[in-house]
Amino acid sequence: MNYKMMGRFLSQVLTIEGVFMVPALVISLFARETGAVRGFLMTLAAIALLALFLRLVCRSSPSAFYAREGLVCVGMSWIVLSAVGCLPFYISREIPRYIDCFFEMVSGFTTTGSSILSDVESLSSGILYWRSFSHWLGGMGVLVFLLAFTPSDNQGAGFTMHLLRAESPGPDVGKMTPKLRTTAVILYGIYVALTALDFVLLLLGGMTPLEAICTAFGTAGTGGFGVRNDSLASFSPYLQNVTTIFMLLFGINFTCYYLILIGQAGSVFKDEELRLFLGLFVVCAGLIALNVRGLYNSWEETLRHSAFQVATIISTTGYATTDFDLWPAFSKGLLMLLMIVGSCAGSTAGGLKLSRLLLLLKSLGRNIRQVLSPRKVERIRINGRVVSEAVLDNANAYLAAYFLIIVVVYLIISLDGFSVGTNLTAALACFNNIGPGLEQVGPTCNFSQFSTLSKLTLSLAMLAGRLEIFPILILFSKDTWVRR
Amino acid sequence: MNYKMMGRFLSQVLTIEGVFMVPALVISLFARETGAVRGFLMTLAAIALLALFLRLVCRSSPSAFYAREGLVCVGMSWIVLSAVGCLPFYISREIPRYIDCFFEMVSGFTTTGSSILSDVESLSSGILYWRSFSHWLGGMGVLVFLLAFTPSDNQGAGFTMHLLRAESPGPDVGKMTPKLRTTAVILYGIYVALTALDFVLLLLGGMTPLEAICTAFGTAGTGGFGVRNDSLASFSPYLQNVTTIFMLLFGINFTCYYLILIGQAGSVFKDEELRLFLGLFVVCAGLIALNVRGLYNSWEETLRHSAFQVATIISTTGYATTDFDLWPAFSKGLLMLLMIVGSCAGSTAGGLKLSRLLLLLKSLGRNIRQVLSPRKVERIRINGRVVSEAVLDNANAYLAAYFLIIVVVYLIISLDGFSVGTNLTAALACFNNIGPGLEQVGPTCNFSQFSTLSKLTLSLAMLAGRLEIFPILILFSKDTWVRR
Repeated sequence: MNYKMMGRFLSQVLTIEGVFMVPALVISLFARETGAVRGFLMTLAAIALLALFLRLVCRSSPSAFYAREGLVCVGMSWIVLSAVGCLPFYISREIPRYIDCFFEMVSGFTTTGSSILSDVESLSSGILYWRSFSHWLGGMGVLVFLLAFTPSDNQGAGFTMHLLRAESPGPDVGKMTPKLRTTAVILYGIYVALTALDFVLLLLGGMTPLEAICTAFGTAGTGGFGVRNDSLASFSPYLQNVTTIFMLLFGINFTCYYLILIGQAGSVFKDEELRLFLGLFVVCAGLIALNVRGLYNSWEETLRHSAFQVATIISTTGYATTDFDLWPAFSKGLLMLLMIVGSCAGSTAGGLKLSRLLLLLKSLGRNIRQVLSPRKVERIRINGRVVSEAVLDNANAYLAAYFLIIVVVYLIISLDGFSVGTNLTAALACFNNIGPGLEQVGPTCNFSQFSTLSKLTLSLAMLAGRLEIFPILILFSKDTWVRR
Repeated sequence: MNYKMMGRFLSQVLTIEGVFMVPALVISLFARETGAVRGFLMTLAAIALLALFLRLVCRSSPSAFYAREGLVCVGMSWIVLSAVGCLPFYISREIPRYIDCFFEMVSGFTTTGSSILSDVESLSSGILYWRSFSHWLGGMGVLVFLLAFTPSDNQGAGFTMHLLRAESPGPDVGKMTPKLRTTAVILYGIYVALTALDFVLLLLGGMTPLEAICTAFGTAGTGGFGVRNDSLASFSPYLQNVTTIFMLLFGINFTCYYLILIGQAGSVFKDEELRLFLGLFVVCAGLIALNVRGLYNSWEETLRHSAFQVATIISTTGYATTDFDLWPAFSKGLLMLLMIVGSCAGSTAGGLKLSRLLLLLKSLGRNIRQVLSPRKVERIRINGRVVSEAVLDNANAYLAAYFLIIVVVYLIISLDGFSVGTNLTAALACFNNIGPGLEQVGPTCNFSQFSTLSKLTLSLAMLAGRLEIFPILILFSKDTWVRR
């Protein structure tokens, strides 16, 4: 293991976190929030010391850097980012217990949006901003940012590719341009532009600037931390509908936007994953609307709530405009299904990813046809292009790991004694980076009632979900740390 | 599709069912149960007519017979066996609605043991015998019986292999001997001997002959239909412990017994699947005993109940000695995990099968190591033997299909409006051929409250689980029925 290079890398990551913490400090200063100001200042000092220390200690380093170093770097840096980034919550005493702060921060960076807070409205504005900003930074990826905007002193092509692969969701990394750095810059460009548009539309609908920026961050990162205790339920229908649309937009593969920008919109609308995404949204929203129509006063309200809830779950955001835990079992079942599948690869959303679902379904179909005609050789195609067997193997391994992690998380948190529905949806909501689940972790509840062990387990599940399992799983593998 | 051959085959299968129905008729005659006697006689007449009709119509047939014909034959014959075999329930009016009769019979043949009856003790003895006997016949396989004991007029080697593969559980068919017929005879020999031993031990413990034979049938087939309303709770500790041991014995790959018989016991105890099975049993029973120790009066009682419940779930039998739905969430979580994995391949049990779990775990481990060292080529071995990639692909496809079926079944039955835990464990318990689940389908409840649509869905799930998905899935595939 190339520890020196890892140290230098962590120092860079921490520096970026520190830089991004400054706006939160400024907001706290303007609002004269002494606790939060102290929290941010002390954290910034700690970050500066730690980054400097790592840079000094890990000055010279051997150049060999393999896939496992890349994965370990990604896994470690996300854990360190969260462990340090949650210090303002703790120092300001706005969240009294450290494990709760860590859970909240992991939930932020992984764009999960599961919270241990019952009263969000009591948070100071600086802390509220930082909590929501973590969604935005975690959504597109801290390391992608690093690749795009810092000088590449030690990043070889192999290294950057490993990082990008580890941090970008989906079965395959789509290369928009031959240069990875250019790709990363384009991704962030689209991301900033869409977030800004959302922000302006929310402002026009009557939100305060802080509400609008926090909601836009939460939407862009498909995170789900809200600024009100009832999430978006008490905002106007206009604001709810704007959020529905933007949650869907951020659940789409960003490559689609790039293709539209360079004038290839035609190929976008033929994209199988996009069609599946929009199809699932329309079908599920329609079925749920039929199923819950008795609960609301008008069709407008029924459709608004069902569309919002389907968008929030399929995009793994986690906002809510109504308590969907009170919906009939069929609607809740559909939402649980959407919790599992998630959105498009290459978006900011979590879950299994629809492209992986497509691969698994096509692979299953091929398997059935092969039983029928054993001698026929068949290749699997997506958007007309043949998918390599290695990618298929990976999707299968991902499914097995997915299954395994859900089972292990379920068993550990079941020690706390909640119901089957609570434990299952808590595991699904955290691992798939959604936010709320059902029953005791439904949209009107929170995760504070879990034990420390469960909170730690769920935090790791969130990280494993955001980084698509392997960078976290590998931290627990003996092979990673044993010198060969 | 070779319809004539299918017809002849169905005729044979029906004949066997008729032959096996005679003992039930005799029992009813001796007990002077007029309703049941009428039921059996009318059903036997219907079977005779149908079998004769099929045999006459489908006299000459082309010889071409492929894998898909084999699968379709298996799927169809299990459905027909159930649809006809449940007629005595209906005609005797002991179960008033036909869909309930069908559900009960499918549950019997697939060795599930889920019941729609709230009062088992009111059934007549002939019906009780037939209900439990279906477990025994379905456990080892009707078609395996056909192969072993009927003249092979139209069964080529390929055909029999397809049938055996479709009906035998597990990722791979272990060939004990080069001749399939000999293998089938040995399997049934071991099966009869173990069942007889269980029967005698139960008799010695004070059960009536009818109770003992029914309980032995349910244990041998890992089915779970009991003769008392409280399953085995009111029987003596001795009878409960005997049943624990035999449930475990019938969850073991029968090849192990064959190897012991021919003096190769050494290789049996090195078998990875067997070790995993026994390890899982000991660990889970131990953990549950620790978790539930407060609920019982003594350690003896605690251990007896935890060992029994773990054995009943891991072997997918479904008897109960205590209401495990009242256990703490962690114990219920462990039981749910065991519901998914099931027992050894080549046993009479259901579930994913432990050998498939081993394959998936080893494949996942290989995938992680390949991320760490991409250039290393690694082969997966079980018991020292290399596993082909085709078998691995199949295990992966099985997992994907498993996932898909659970989701679809869950969604359909959720229309009835029960809780998450009820719907999930009902789907798991039926698909994995266990019997009871948790909450509304817990060990003290039954499946009668579900709608007709749900009962039909759960029946298909039981069949898909027993026949390992493909023979049932294939019945719904367009490719199967379209003439090419």
